[in-house]
Amino acid sequence: MASVIPASNSSMRSDRNTYVGKRFVHVKNAYLDSMDEDILYHLDLGTKTHNLPAMFGDVKFVCVGSPNRMKAFALFMHKELGLEEAEEDIKDICAGTDRYCMYKTGPVLTIMAVFRSNNSEAITFLGSAILIRGTGLLTCNEGRRYVLFMYHFARCMKTFSFFQQHVMVIPSISIMLHELITLLHHARCCDVTIIRIGTSGGIGIAPGTVVITDIAVDSFFKPRFEQVILDNIVTRSTELDKELSEELFNCSKEIPNFPTFIGHTMCTYDFYEGQGRLDGALCSFSREKKLDYLKRAYKAGVRNIEMESTVFAAMCGLCGLKAAVVCVTLLNRLGCDQINLPHDVLVEYQQRPQLLISNFIRRRLGLCD
Amino acid sequence: MASVIPASNSSMRSDRNTYVGKRFVHVKNAYLDSMDEDILYHLDLGTKTHNLPAMFGDVKFVCVGSPNRMKAFALFMHKELGLEEAEEDIKDICAGTDRYCMYKTGPVLTIMAVFRSNNSEAITFLGSAILIRGTGLLTCNEGRRYVLFMYHFARCMKTFSFFQQHVMVIPSISIMLHELITLLHHARCCDVTIIRIGTSGGIGIAPGTVVITDIAVDSFFKPRFEQVILDNIVTRSTELDKELSEELFNCSKEIPNFPTFIGHTMCTYDFYEGQGRLDGALCSFSREKKLDYLKRAYKAGVRNIEMESTVFAAMCGLCGLKAAVVCVTLLNRLGCDQINLPHDVLVEYQQRPQLLISNFIRRRLGLCD
Repeated sequence: MASVIPASNSSMRSDRNTYVGKRFVHVKNAYLDSMDEDILYHLDLGTKTHNLPAMFGDVKFVCVGSPNRMKAFALFMHKELGLEEAEEDIKDICAGTDRYCMYKTGPVLTIMAVFRSNNSEAITFLGSAILIRGTGLLTCNEGRRYVLFMYHFARCMKTFSFFQQHVMVIPSISIMLHELITLLHHARCCDVTIIRIGTSGGIGIAPGTVVITDIAVDSFFKPRFEQVILDNIVTRSTELDKELSEELFNCSKEIPNFPTFIGHTMCTYDFYEGQGRLDGALCSFSREKKLDYLKRAYKAGVRNIEMESTVFAAMCGLCGLKAAVVCVTLLNRLGCDQINLPHDVLVEYQQRPQLLISNFIRRRLGLCD
Repeated sequence: MASVIPASNSSMRSDRNTYVGKRFVHVKNAYLDSMDEDILYHLDLGTKTHNLPAMFGDVKFVCVGSPNRMKAFALFMHKELGLEEAEEDIKDICAGTDRYCMYKTGPVLTIMAVFRSNNSEAITFLGSAILIRGTGLLTCNEGRRYVLFMYHFARCMKTFSFFQQHVMVIPSISIMLHELITLLHHARCCDVTIIRIGTSGGIGIAPGTVVITDIAVDSFFKPRFEQVILDNIVTRSTELDKELSEELFNCSKEIPNFPTFIGHTMCTYDFYEGQGRLDGALCSFSREKKLDYLKRAYKAGVRNIEMESTVFAAMCGLCGLKAAVVCVTLLNRLGCDQINLPHDVLVEYQQRPQLLISNFIRRRLGLCD
């Protein structure tokens, strides 16, 4: 079990800074471009079956998360972008197919891919996309045309009500990122910003607080992601984009009654024993040990706990994506283990990261007053 | 990072053998029974809101997996159980509600819980249950009344078309098992058999082969699951029930053209780098290194790779559940990394573990000729 520490990393990392001006989404796989065809298996996309540059080439923003209300989200963006079109006119453009739902709200296109699974009954929502095209009238620092491609993974969306706190978990988001990043690479995207939005458990902060992650840490409060490659363990950095975090934090200040922190986010592989919960089928530690652990986490700078941020930070960092993690907290783990918020409060909290990201995007698009 | 090896395990393990006759589903959490109310958050069940013993008390079989065709599965069981009732009569008993779908096929009741998520549009299938009540006429070795409760987790089912090979992944199945086992404990279930059915990548065996796992091993071919508890790593055994595996293997012999092996199953945290795939956004090893790794896995007794078995074996073992893992292989990883089976072949392969389990259940229920 050899431990290949940053040697491999730093070499990978160094490539991140070799882009002058345009920062391309790049993969770290020598085999990929020599493949006759690359099938993005879980996305049901391929280099032979789809014109990926035409479909996604101008993507500038990727949002991984679970708004879990696609039409509602389209309406929300419709409002946010101050469009005149009547809401009644927002209809599913692909209603005739069983493959996609698509909502157009002015410059915002929300696409929801609906996949029939092997059986003709179960439907999996694959994802959704929001497309904003800046008009020629727009002037902003990234050129005249922008695409906002908000990618929402099927499982995020479909399991959101089910796994309110944990949309994807590490192995699942890693599969998605492998294929999403490969997709953006095949599409020759550049200067892409990727943001994970979600929910989390807070430590020592009030429920409803939005935490913008500066560094993702593991269960031992270390800023690292340990990736098993064959039977080696490779340690990867989990640093996120400092400027982007600060830009998001500044956006949050413009929203009234919007408590926001920049802090460390702890990422675990387990919801119960791994996060020190006293409920669950197995609990081998005392209430005191649990509190001692969470307090040590707080002391180390951890403000919230979720299950995706380390691998998200590591993979995006290696592939030249400016990345951020924005999660709202649904409970204060120093006080309790179970979520007991009234439904309407829970819904309002869950919308906060979306509100912040939509403001951020409007700002980037020069659509703010 | 202290390593608490079997000390805690062996003490836990010893409890598994203290049941004479009845083998209860037991949790390992001193806090649980002292809780005023236990809310099984992700299952949307609770000790105050539901009469769990009445609902689930006579559960004898739990199947974790993704048949991903609930009505089709009900029809399948209907046939398997040789019922006279016409298939047209199999209707959704709960069609009037938005919470459950229920199909009754003679003694088999298939319940599919449909959960509205926080938004009124996205629906999450929570799970499904199959209920078989042996009639008074039935004689079999577990008494006169049986309940087959086939539990299908929402994400397994809803993401099956999406993650054909990897239904749940470790952190997700661990959350499910914590709540499922707690549920069975609250329901005072005993003599429960739990089987994970799914799909996997094969090593050195033909696609379509069903692998019954004797021992689940990690990426280093070790029969262990490392559980992070607070900031300790606890190593747990991943042994499965030998008798049950053999009983399942014997069942498989009765099905014509049904290639089946008993072998080790390797469980990984990652689908790409962790399983030695040459596609994906990141690949830092050569084709030779990949093949060397997979061949070493084969030599160590590994016949297939998936992403749930180690934590499944560890948790079920600790909680006194007789457990088995039955997965069909969709490709031979010594030959390729991508699945390129024709759709109908893929569907037929995916049904094999279900066919085996239904035969096993019919045998247990004394319904075989």
